[in-house]
Amino acid sequence: MKLLFKHCDILAADGEGYRWIQDGYLGIDGDTIDYIGSGKPAAPYDREKDMKDRLLCPGLVNCHGHTAMTLLRGVGSDLPLQEWLFEKMMPIEDRFTAHDIQVGNALALLEMISTGTTSYSDMYFETATAVENAVAAGIKANLCRPSQCFDPQETYAQNQRAKESIQLFKDCNGLADGRILIDFAIHAEYTNSPHIVEAYSADCKALGGRMHIHLSETKKEHEECIAKYGKTPAQWFRDLGTFESPAFAAHCVFVTEEDLAILREKGVSVVHNPTSNMKLGSGFAPIPHMLELGLNVALGTDGAASNNNLDMMEEMHLAAVLHNGFTHDPTLMKPAQVLTMATRSGARLQGRSDTGSLDVGKKADIIAIDLTRPHLFPNIAPLALMTYSAQGSDVAMTMVDGRVLYENGEFLTLDADKILHDARACVKRLYA
Amino acid sequence: MKLLFKHCDILAADGEGYRWIQDGYLGIDGDTIDYIGSGKPAAPYDREKDMKDRLLCPGLVNCHGHTAMTLLRGVGSDLPLQEWLFEKMMPIEDRFTAHDIQVGNALALLEMISTGTTSYSDMYFETATAVENAVAAGIKANLCRPSQCFDPQETYAQNQRAKESIQLFKDCNGLADGRILIDFAIHAEYTNSPHIVEAYSADCKALGGRMHIHLSETKKEHEECIAKYGKTPAQWFRDLGTFESPAFAAHCVFVTEEDLAILREKGVSVVHNPTSNMKLGSGFAPIPHMLELGLNVALGTDGAASNNNLDMMEEMHLAAVLHNGFTHDPTLMKPAQVLTMATRSGARLQGRSDTGSLDVGKKADIIAIDLTRPHLFPNIAPLALMTYSAQGSDVAMTMVDGRVLYENGEFLTLDADKILHDARACVKRLYA
Repeated sequence: MKLLFKHCDILAADGEGYRWIQDGYLGIDGDTIDYIGSGKPAAPYDREKDMKDRLLCPGLVNCHGHTAMTLLRGVGSDLPLQEWLFEKMMPIEDRFTAHDIQVGNALALLEMISTGTTSYSDMYFETATAVENAVAAGIKANLCRPSQCFDPQETYAQNQRAKESIQLFKDCNGLADGRILIDFAIHAEYTNSPHIVEAYSADCKALGGRMHIHLSETKKEHEECIAKYGKTPAQWFRDLGTFESPAFAAHCVFVTEEDLAILREKGVSVVHNPTSNMKLGSGFAPIPHMLELGLNVALGTDGAASNNNLDMMEEMHLAAVLHNGFTHDPTLMKPAQVLTMATRSGARLQGRSDTGSLDVGKKADIIAIDLTRPHLFPNIAPLALMTYSAQGSDVAMTMVDGRVLYENGEFLTLDADKILHDARACVKRLYA
Repeated sequence: MKLLFKHCDILAADGEGYRWIQDGYLGIDGDTIDYIGSGKPAAPYDREKDMKDRLLCPGLVNCHGHTAMTLLRGVGSDLPLQEWLFEKMMPIEDRFTAHDIQVGNALALLEMISTGTTSYSDMYFETATAVENAVAAGIKANLCRPSQCFDPQETYAQNQRAKESIQLFKDCNGLADGRILIDFAIHAEYTNSPHIVEAYSADCKALGGRMHIHLSETKKEHEECIAKYGKTPAQWFRDLGTFESPAFAAHCVFVTEEDLAILREKGVSVVHNPTSNMKLGSGFAPIPHMLELGLNVALGTDGAASNNNLDMMEEMHLAAVLHNGFTHDPTLMKPAQVLTMATRSGARLQGRSDTGSLDVGKKADIIAIDLTRPHLFPNIAPLALMTYSAQGSDVAMTMVDGRVLYENGEFLTLDADKILHDARACVKRLYA
């Protein structure tokens, strides 16, 4: 099927930057973009679709989250961290069944797809349920079963989590025409033992995997690692071989100049989670400096329990303004940089070189912004509009690999009523 | 007309806090709330309206902005401040006619009303056009014609701006059943002369007016005032009598402990504009400390040129998370405090003691949040939902003084198509 979008504005790729096409055309052949331009293409298309008053942008890539935690949205928001975590969140999370996790993930998919996310990276358990959901939904997903180890006596052979993780990789990596990728993952330094991390990292490298970790999210984590091992978390992971595979690290709030040099040398991508870092009081990741150093920095929402939504538009907005305020420099973060973090850099982080921007030959992972909204007028600077003015609900269409998943409030691949019905039942039981 | 909302959730007033009523009733007699409760009221109502899956909240009060600047949305977003202001913004703003200002304000009203703002405070010129728009729209508005003086030789009698401001107060204060209030306003210390400020402040006091000012928004402004006058802007205004009237000060990013003591002693309200302060690199207003001191702190969007939208939900979100991040304390800002800033404290600042919360006897200034959205589930903590999870587009209904201004995407008092049509014509001419 060849589909032609006509009369649309387009934020097309222009090298590493963007080219604004007004009243243009974007052609799709199957799952791939085959035309972008101001004039109508000569080649015939099976179907033409009028996209007047729509701005086509690359789909958003949410690079860090814990989707099933949607079911914990709003729990104990007023409480101190330890009380919130140990007395409120964990007791409920401990009751999560695989079914709860699947429903919580499905609820997250509704939210992500309707706010323009076309691909996401997740870290949670019962991962097979997320694979099943993503295949059905048509979204792209980098999923993992994170490795953890709380018993220092446990051998690598005894570590069930690592085994499950590797089996999942063998079973599911590349499913659904590559829309499903399985990552390796180490939850964090403070939830692991060095010998497990070292052996698991070696397996990741041997199998050609990609590694998802939490890194230096809080001052406490960073300083306790130094006290325990005499090195920073970044040094610890490097020394255990974790960065010998393509890797990405969520948060990186407390990183030293030497840590940044390690991330740069090893090509480790960073996921910035601005709302989570603010809400949980973690602090300001040195994102502008990372960008200056040439690190690949992507964006994520983190879980709904610490955000409390999964809206990448909100993360773009926050990433665009926060660092200006922190450094007293209004020109520090540019709209183009922020959109790149939310799209191209995310795709790069996920190992998806065939998407992340609107260009001929790239996969048709596209969102359409409804330009008729009063807060999106005037449309004289579409990059600023996307980063500062737009909200998640301005997404009028979400397309992945040429397939429309969401349009004008309707989900085409998911049964929203059923998911909300199931979620109500889960919550009723979990909070009883 | 007596109207009864039934089967709705309600964030009702409970002293200075909130009481969450589920599946309850809210009755309205004309423009006033006459019943709130879990059970159906005994008294008859002319009309009952099913509000299942709706959360009724007090209408949002946007306490600082420059509405006509919607027409400048996105201009020069990438540029350094001086270049942005002097080379991009001001040349276009200089071309603004009264018609442009009226259309820009109307565009702002569409955005504000559809995202839950029921009352706003504005600082701009050609203020009669904003009065006309607000009367037609049915929104509440505290409007002003700010005083400025760029010629130190000018006498108070020669200052046309002050004259216009006072005439406007005499002509329009209290119009439309008090929905229109006219404030006095001094743009800022750095755009005025002391003798004008002193005389104008005395007139404000004599006439029983309310005063809207910018205060210590940037470090430059704060420090240059000290260099020029040997006192901070807060001290300068105090010494010139500006705080002898009920007053409110936008920004207050750079305020000393002594400045805060002045604001407290004089009962000056503060308007926090978190997005603007971040985007323009101004910095972090010490909001948690102000709240601790008992200052009345409200919220504002500032103008669309420095935000770039007028979405109070976004400001609540930012106000709720920013200060936690800045101080590394995840429990610093509470959802209830943030909602109060956006509602009750705003009403107090505007001099509207008859609104700002949902309580019997208060004006029916009410918004309804659509709880069927996936990102608003589960609804176990409605205050957290409002501050962290909700977005502007979740507003399903906006009511002012018992009159519905907006419902399910439709404007009942404004012609959105005509406003957007007019705005297109203005922009075409302004940017030619």
